[in-house]
Amino acid sequence: MDRYKQGFEKLSEIDGDAGHKVIAALQDVCPDLAKYVIEFPFGDIYSRPGLDLRSREIATVAALCAMGNAIPQLKVHIHGALNVGVTETEVKEVIMQMAVYAGFPAALNGMMAAKEVFLERSKK
Amino acid sequence: MDRYKQGFEKLSEIDGDAGHKVIAALQDVCPDLAKYVIEFPFGDIYSRPGLDLRSREIATVAALCAMGNAIPQLKVHIHGALNVGVTETEVKEVIMQMAVYAGFPAALNGMMAAKEVFLERSKK
Amino acid sequence: MDRYKQGFEKLSEIDGDAGHKVIAALQDVCPDLAKYVIEFPFGDIYSRPGLDLRSREIATVAALCAMGNAIPQLKVHIHGALNVGVTETEVKEVIMQMAVYAGFPAALNGMMAAKEVFLERSKK
Amino acid sequence: MDRYKQGFEKLSEIDGDAGHKVIAALQDVCPDLAKYVIEFPFGDIYSRPGLDLRSREIATVAALCAMGNAIPQLKVHIHGALNVGVTETEVKEVIMQMAVYAGFPAALNGMMAAKEVFLERSKK
Amino acid sequence: MDRYKQGFEKLSEIDGDAGHKVIAALQDVCPDLAKYVIEFPFGDIYSRPGLDLRSREIATVAALCAMGNAIPQLKVHIHGALNVGVTETEVKEVIMQMAVYAGFPAALNGMMAAKEVFLERSKK
Amino acid sequence: MDRYKQGFEKLSEIDGDAGHKVIAALQDVCPDLAKYVIEFPFGDIYSRPGLDLRSREIATVAALCAMGNAIPQLKVHIHGALNVGVTETEVKEVIMQMAVYAGFPAALNGMMAAKEVFLERSKK
Repeated sequence: MDRYKQGFEKLSEIDGDAGHKVIAALQDVCPDLAKYVIEFPFGDIYSRPGLDLRSREIATVAALCAMGNAIPQLKVHIHGALNVGVTETEVKEVIMQMAVYAGFPAALNGMMAAKEVFLERSKK
Repeated sequence: MDRYKQGFEKLSEIDGDAGHKVIAALQDVCPDLAKYVIEFPFGDIYSRPGLDLRSREIATVAALCAMGNAIPQLKVHIHGALNVGVTETEVKEVIMQMAVYAGFPAALNGMMAAKEVFLERSKK
Repeated sequence: MDRYKQGFEKLSEIDGDAGHKVIAALQDVCPDLAKYVIEFPFGDIYSRPGLDLRSREIATVAALCAMGNAIPQLKVHIHGALNVGVTETEVKEVIMQMAVYAGFPAALNGMMAAKEVFLERSKK
Repeated sequence: MDRYKQGFEKLSEIDGDAGHKVIAALQDVCPDLAKYVIEFPFGDIYSRPGLDLRSREIATVAALCAMGNAIPQLKVHIHGALNVGVTETEVKEVIMQMAVYAGFPAALNGMMAAKEVFLERSKK
Repeated sequence: MDRYKQGFEKLSEIDGDAGHKVIAALQDVCPDLAKYVIEFPFGDIYSRPGLDLRSREIATVAALCAMGNAIPQLKVHIHGALNVGVTETEVKEVIMQMAVYAGFPAALNGMMAAKEVFLERSKK
Repeated sequence: MDRYKQGFEKLSEIDGDAGHKVIAALQDVCPDLAKYVIEFPFGDIYSRPGLDLRSREIATVAALCAMGNAIPQLKVHIHGALNVGVTETEVKEVIMQMAVYAGFPAALNGMMAAKEVFLERSKK
């Protein structure tokens, strides 16, 4: 299967609607970046064996929360984590743990992002 | 059990010798910081139920690799991850995935840190 | 006095209403993180002798401004600095100085945050 | 020519209205920071020979996109880049390239900033 | 031409020996990351039309200097910039300009990296 | 008094030998950056009234420790803080406090830098 097709399926499996919206927002300004988002992160990396999707999403939520300058992407991947079987409790534990490594502001801003995602999903 | 005692046991379980060396290096310059390292991250956070230690170490390796300015701590937690059952392959997958979120330099520097840790452990 | 009680008093003394709002916003999503915010930063760190509160708030405003990804927390601690006796002029000097260490964008965004806090306080 | 005068002319040449708005927003809260913005970045640095303005703006767009915590300044300098002859295609290439060095979230957030700037300019 | 082959040629053209050493250092620990470094940054991004190589290297030197946590990669790309026609003076101008956006420490550490690269090349 | 002369005196007063070494290391590769280091940070900012030097150095140590990618500059300013009357205990309190805002790795790496500076000074 080619990288684009495999990537699009993986993106849909993990991030669902939240992922499709990111791709749509890029289409008019830079469709090639949309293509790369699908091909490299999802077609190459998330499609690899060697680490289960649940662990991959835990790693991504941790990293984006710690970096602190990627709140929109953190929200997409909190959706992603929940979509592949991470529980809300586990998401909160990962974010709380980031207080240790990236400081309390990173954890607080990450928790507020999680709160929004949980609320959004509870409405559906 | 008090936070310090519980924290010290958790630190020993996870980080082993690499963790003890961090504590020892702090003792002469600032023993209170050593105490806090044991009490808050290990006594409070890593001792919580709600997320297994394996997932906690995956989260920490991801965050420290993505942040890119904490190589000594990344090495300690690559040891920690391996100590609690994460495989070398899984550590490499987590680090490789950080190329997506924090860029290739973060992944490359993280992989070089992993290479050193793997080599050190293979000598024992 | 226990860490929680001491921390809550310190939080109230320093950050006042702005601090209470942070705690309230966490209560429904993750009350344990609210507890840790009170216990470690305020119960352990800000309660230590060895550095006066005025200097502690100068350090925090400097750090949050330099990090650049924690604007909500920067605003809380500009309130905090003013509450413990740092003057508006001194807050502005700290933020301006961050242009040297973290670049002009960090200083500009920090100054806009200060402008909002000053305005909010002048209305009361 | 003195640094302030030379800096103001350079700021006007590069950033135009977007630059003047930054200066205006600082005037009531901290006019000295406005003065330094004009004198050091524009009076000293951008006025130097040795690197053409086009290359300087490419460097600035790259850096601000990679840092990820300076979106307002990134927008000002996307205007700046376009004002000194960088094309929209080139701006997009620089931002896309940042996916390699600072990760996809930095590139995505940078591209959304570029989209807003392009739209704003197309309306005039 | 396939992505790997095109990427390897581009890597060789831009980074030369310094790039080959990075690939070699990855081969025993994680050859797949070496493959991705060749395919995505060099096969996809640097091979794109729309921005000349000289501008691409100026953007990369700026970003890596501003990020401040990727000194080994900064050195590789100072070599790269010089290899594709950026002058030593221009490299220094880009780095000096980063004092404005990322602060003086980033510019100072970047300049020390440049000093080492210039010295190394002058010996050959 | 002109900015350069005033800056050099301020640099000498605050950072002493450690500051002079920074300037010397820049002279052969980029004397203009050395000039700017003296003129803007020291001639303009540290020479301002409105905040005492002790508070300025507390702010700088906090920021550089929190940023985590400027260890050489952190060491220079730990010297600077001690030179203008901040005590070793106060330096340690500032660094320990950064665990709250930038995470434990930043505080640990900052404390190791302080340990080296204290040792170096105790030998004289």
